[in-house]
Amino acid sequence: MKTNENTVSIFALGGINEIGKNMYVVEYGEDLIVIDCGGKFPDESLLGIDLIIPDVTYLEDNKEKIRALIVTHGHEDHIGGIPYLLRKINVPIYATHFTLGLIELKLEEHRLSRDTKLIAIDSDSKLELGELNVSFFQVSHSIPDCLGIVFHTPAGNIVHTGDFKFDLTPTNEQYSDIHKMAAIGQQGVLCLISESTNAERSGLSPSERMVGSHMNEAFMKADGKIFVSTFASNVNRVQQVVEACMKTNRKLALLGRSMVNVVSVAIERGYLIVPEGMLIEANEVDQLAPEKVAILCTGSQGEPMAALARLASGNYRDISVYPGDTVILAASPIPGNEKDVSRIIDNLFQLGANVTYGSGSTTGMHVSGHGYQEDLKLMLTLMKPTYFIPVHGEFRMLHHHRLLAESVGVEPGNTFIIKNGDVVDIENSIARQTRRIPSGDTYVDGMGVGDVGEIVLRDRKQLSEDGMLVIVLTLSKTERRIIQGPDTITRGFVYVKDSEDLLREINRLVKKTVNDLQAENIRQWNVVKQNIKKSVGQYLFTRTKRRPMILPIIIEI
Amino acid sequence: MKTNENTVSIFALGGINEIGKNMYVVEYGEDLIVIDCGGKFPDESLLGIDLIIPDVTYLEDNKEKIRALIVTHGHEDHIGGIPYLLRKINVPIYATHFTLGLIELKLEEHRLSRDTKLIAIDSDSKLELGELNVSFFQVSHSIPDCLGIVFHTPAGNIVHTGDFKFDLTPTNEQYSDIHKMAAIGQQGVLCLISESTNAERSGLSPSERMVGSHMNEAFMKADGKIFVSTFASNVNRVQQVVEACMKTNRKLALLGRSMVNVVSVAIERGYLIVPEGMLIEANEVDQLAPEKVAILCTGSQGEPMAALARLASGNYRDISVYPGDTVILAASPIPGNEKDVSRIIDNLFQLGANVTYGSGSTTGMHVSGHGYQEDLKLMLTLMKPTYFIPVHGEFRMLHHHRLLAESVGVEPGNTFIIKNGDVVDIENSIARQTRRIPSGDTYVDGMGVGDVGEIVLRDRKQLSEDGMLVIVLTLSKTERRIIQGPDTITRGFVYVKDSEDLLREINRLVKKTVNDLQAENIRQWNVVKQNIKKSVGQYLFTRTKRRPMILPIIIEI
Repeated sequence: MKTNENTVSIFALGGINEIGKNMYVVEYGEDLIVIDCGGKFPDESLLGIDLIIPDVTYLEDNKEKIRALIVTHGHEDHIGGIPYLLRKINVPIYATHFTLGLIELKLEEHRLSRDTKLIAIDSDSKLELGELNVSFFQVSHSIPDCLGIVFHTPAGNIVHTGDFKFDLTPTNEQYSDIHKMAAIGQQGVLCLISESTNAERSGLSPSERMVGSHMNEAFMKADGKIFVSTFASNVNRVQQVVEACMKTNRKLALLGRSMVNVVSVAIERGYLIVPEGMLIEANEVDQLAPEKVAILCTGSQGEPMAALARLASGNYRDISVYPGDTVILAASPIPGNEKDVSRIIDNLFQLGANVTYGSGSTTGMHVSGHGYQEDLKLMLTLMKPTYFIPVHGEFRMLHHHRLLAESVGVEPGNTFIIKNGDVVDIENSIARQTRRIPSGDTYVDGMGVGDVGEIVLRDRKQLSEDGMLVIVLTLSKTERRIIQGPDTITRGFVYVKDSEDLLREINRLVKKTVNDLQAENIRQWNVVKQNIKKSVGQYLFTRTKRRPMILPIIIEI
Repeated sequence: MKTNENTVSIFALGGINEIGKNMYVVEYGEDLIVIDCGGKFPDESLLGIDLIIPDVTYLEDNKEKIRALIVTHGHEDHIGGIPYLLRKINVPIYATHFTLGLIELKLEEHRLSRDTKLIAIDSDSKLELGELNVSFFQVSHSIPDCLGIVFHTPAGNIVHTGDFKFDLTPTNEQYSDIHKMAAIGQQGVLCLISESTNAERSGLSPSERMVGSHMNEAFMKADGKIFVSTFASNVNRVQQVVEACMKTNRKLALLGRSMVNVVSVAIERGYLIVPEGMLIEANEVDQLAPEKVAILCTGSQGEPMAALARLASGNYRDISVYPGDTVILAASPIPGNEKDVSRIIDNLFQLGANVTYGSGSTTGMHVSGHGYQEDLKLMLTLMKPTYFIPVHGEFRMLHHHRLLAESVGVEPGNTFIIKNGDVVDIENSIARQTRRIPSGDTYVDGMGVGDVGEIVLRDRKQLSEDGMLVIVLTLSKTERRIIQGPDTITRGFVYVKDSEDLLREINRLVKKTVNDLQAENIRQWNVVKQNIKKSVGQYLFTRTKRRPMILPIIIEI
């Protein structure tokens, strides 16, 4: 479709029907602005895949229109794809001071040369990007310096909330700028794009301040060392741990690469205040009395290589968990991580620690950074949008978010539940979703980006379940008789020593197959290989109920 | 250790530090009784494994002492290992009428000939098994006909609770026989073996009756078809669905093999009462008005091949979910299943259904069959044991159960938190844990039982993450020069067409490796293969950050 001059187009390249790889686009005439560029961690069905990023074919095809990548905040699901995007397209990046700090860390890790323009903005910035004017408003979330975005287009205002909650008692100045939001709503919002993570949860999200008071209590009570595990990027929570240390006169050690990195960015940039001399090195922990030290560590999601898992299994150099120590998991397990987290808790109890764990709402040691139903309704009420696009969520969350929108007055029919790649075109104030642009998942595996696709994954799945057999056979070129082999090599199938008669039968079957074809004068390699696969495969399935991959290799001499 | 005449020994072959494969043993003199024989579903790290069962080496070595397998109830984690045990040891099985029905189903599935003695008991039965007298008491749980067991040994009484909760308002006569339990406690209990599943949950477990009233409400409100997904074995809940159908004049269809099988066992044996004419076939559903029909189906844990998943993805023959239909998930997702369940809920919402889901406690559509902390304390209080062994749980659950026991008067030091294989010997009323017997996991993969071990699993893991390369090379026997190849075949690594220069470099490296060794006059195949693996492996890791399995195959002609 050719869009006319007065059309503003909105779509997602990631973030819909998933939690992760957020990437949204607002396009008007010859100008295109990208919002966020996130990564997503694969589930276990994507064997060997390290990261999923959005397919950016559309952006590559429309390079010349891209005016900016605006990043709402520094979480992985909003910045994790940036290094991969920059390898394809050089685009100026606009983000707040703290978010830029995290993006710079990421670019250093990827050894990306610094020819990308990184432009610091704050919630008072006003940008002119082509024909689009852009302004911002501050929102509360579980990381500092988060933005909502207003696109002032000739067709009307488009608002993207970023990730948000309303925290009326935040632990720093990162409040939700309700007055500004009210003014934006008052000006008129053509379309609101709002996050949906907690659209299933009723009520108003609790304040981060609640965690502080529970943290203080726990620190007061504890006799031994205290370990606190949380997300490194939750600087407000880290600040509250620092304050609990001050109150109880404890030194603080940081464990885990991301904890050390993010905390230094936060200190350097003024988002975290740590008293002089409070921070100690890991190897100094044992030199202090246990009641004089606390440890902040990564691994609250049960990541097997992170600090907490290694502490729990007694594999951390310098530091051990002793009976009577306290361990606080200041995070709720993300769905899919429960088992790994439970295993760590079990190990910590076995070491004799007192462990505080469970969903944050029961322990008081975690609150979500995403608004609940009442937060979402408040945002909708403030913005009074004509059209509404719920984003950042799985389908059921988007569905519930639509119901919330209707409950506060968004017209039925004016909510668009889209898929990644669906384009909402708003033309002369009428919104329609009729066209799609290319979208999808790009898999990162090691250094490879996009080189692992369905066939490779299907092979990995078969290999992972039943292993493989390589059958090597040397045939004489002239007579086509077997002059060596068959030799069978298995991996991931069964122990060879347990299965000698199985291998004997395979050899017999292979010989028979080759000889039978020989008798019929069939000599095409493909046919010979197919027949070997078939006869051996059937035999193995009947005998073992397994379907290993069978690779016949025929050498002609 | 040689145990003396007055020693009773207690141990687990499964069920400790895990949820699943329950198997406990009480041994006295020349008599050994096995309690339960469960299976456990593997987590995703055990690639290709179908089921885990207990290692029963100890039982095989002590075959002549085994007097009975007593099965407390019919859940998979208590009966799933029986067919595998029976292939090794023929042992008479004692269980209640309903439990035996499920065991018989299982033996038929495995086509096990019926030379096993199956002996029906009830909570009033008294058995003399060698020198051991055994009696029973009735407990409430989420399946009918559950038993607790009392072993009357000359050394004292040993009580095993089975799985239980105290449901004071059960939906049938499957009440907890508190009077009998009190009497047992009054006689004196030397050692209590009690389940720990919900030892982390405070309060008293809610009654199954609560589900019934919520089910009735939901049935009253619904206009379209109603789908209810729950565990087939939860016959009390099935009965409540039947009653909601009666109240709202709906017919009932059963979907899913286990639903059909278990419901017929329950009806045949008198545990479920379904009015004449209520049950209809799946293909009759569409002939009735939607408000006249309900469907009970399997798949509440998100199992991808079960009825609910197929309904949600529109792949169920005969029956579709239409907008306005109601779907009730009358089960909480077991940890690890959350993602699969969520995917189904998303699909159902996309079909336009009203879906009731979430943890049972919030929807009122599920209650746990396992007692909470107050239930566990009530059992401990009734039994007043001298010694206590918490079982059926992961470590943190056993740990909390110990704290509960101490809170109601079990002496500190008298609780034994054991591992599978640890033996508690009680000799002259003094309990000690000093010895172990063999124990472990036996993996079932297809028809193979125990033929897949660490090496096979390690290979599967490597294959699953990075795939493999087979490098085939033909050398001349006399001169040792390359006469054919190298040819490289990859599976699960990268697309070959995307990686031609990679393959070229591999060929070059292989040739160089062979020629270098040739120049040094090194001819051992092993060395040649090792060197090829090393040089190609290093190259691939540097280039791709992947470590595929490399299989060099050398043919000498």
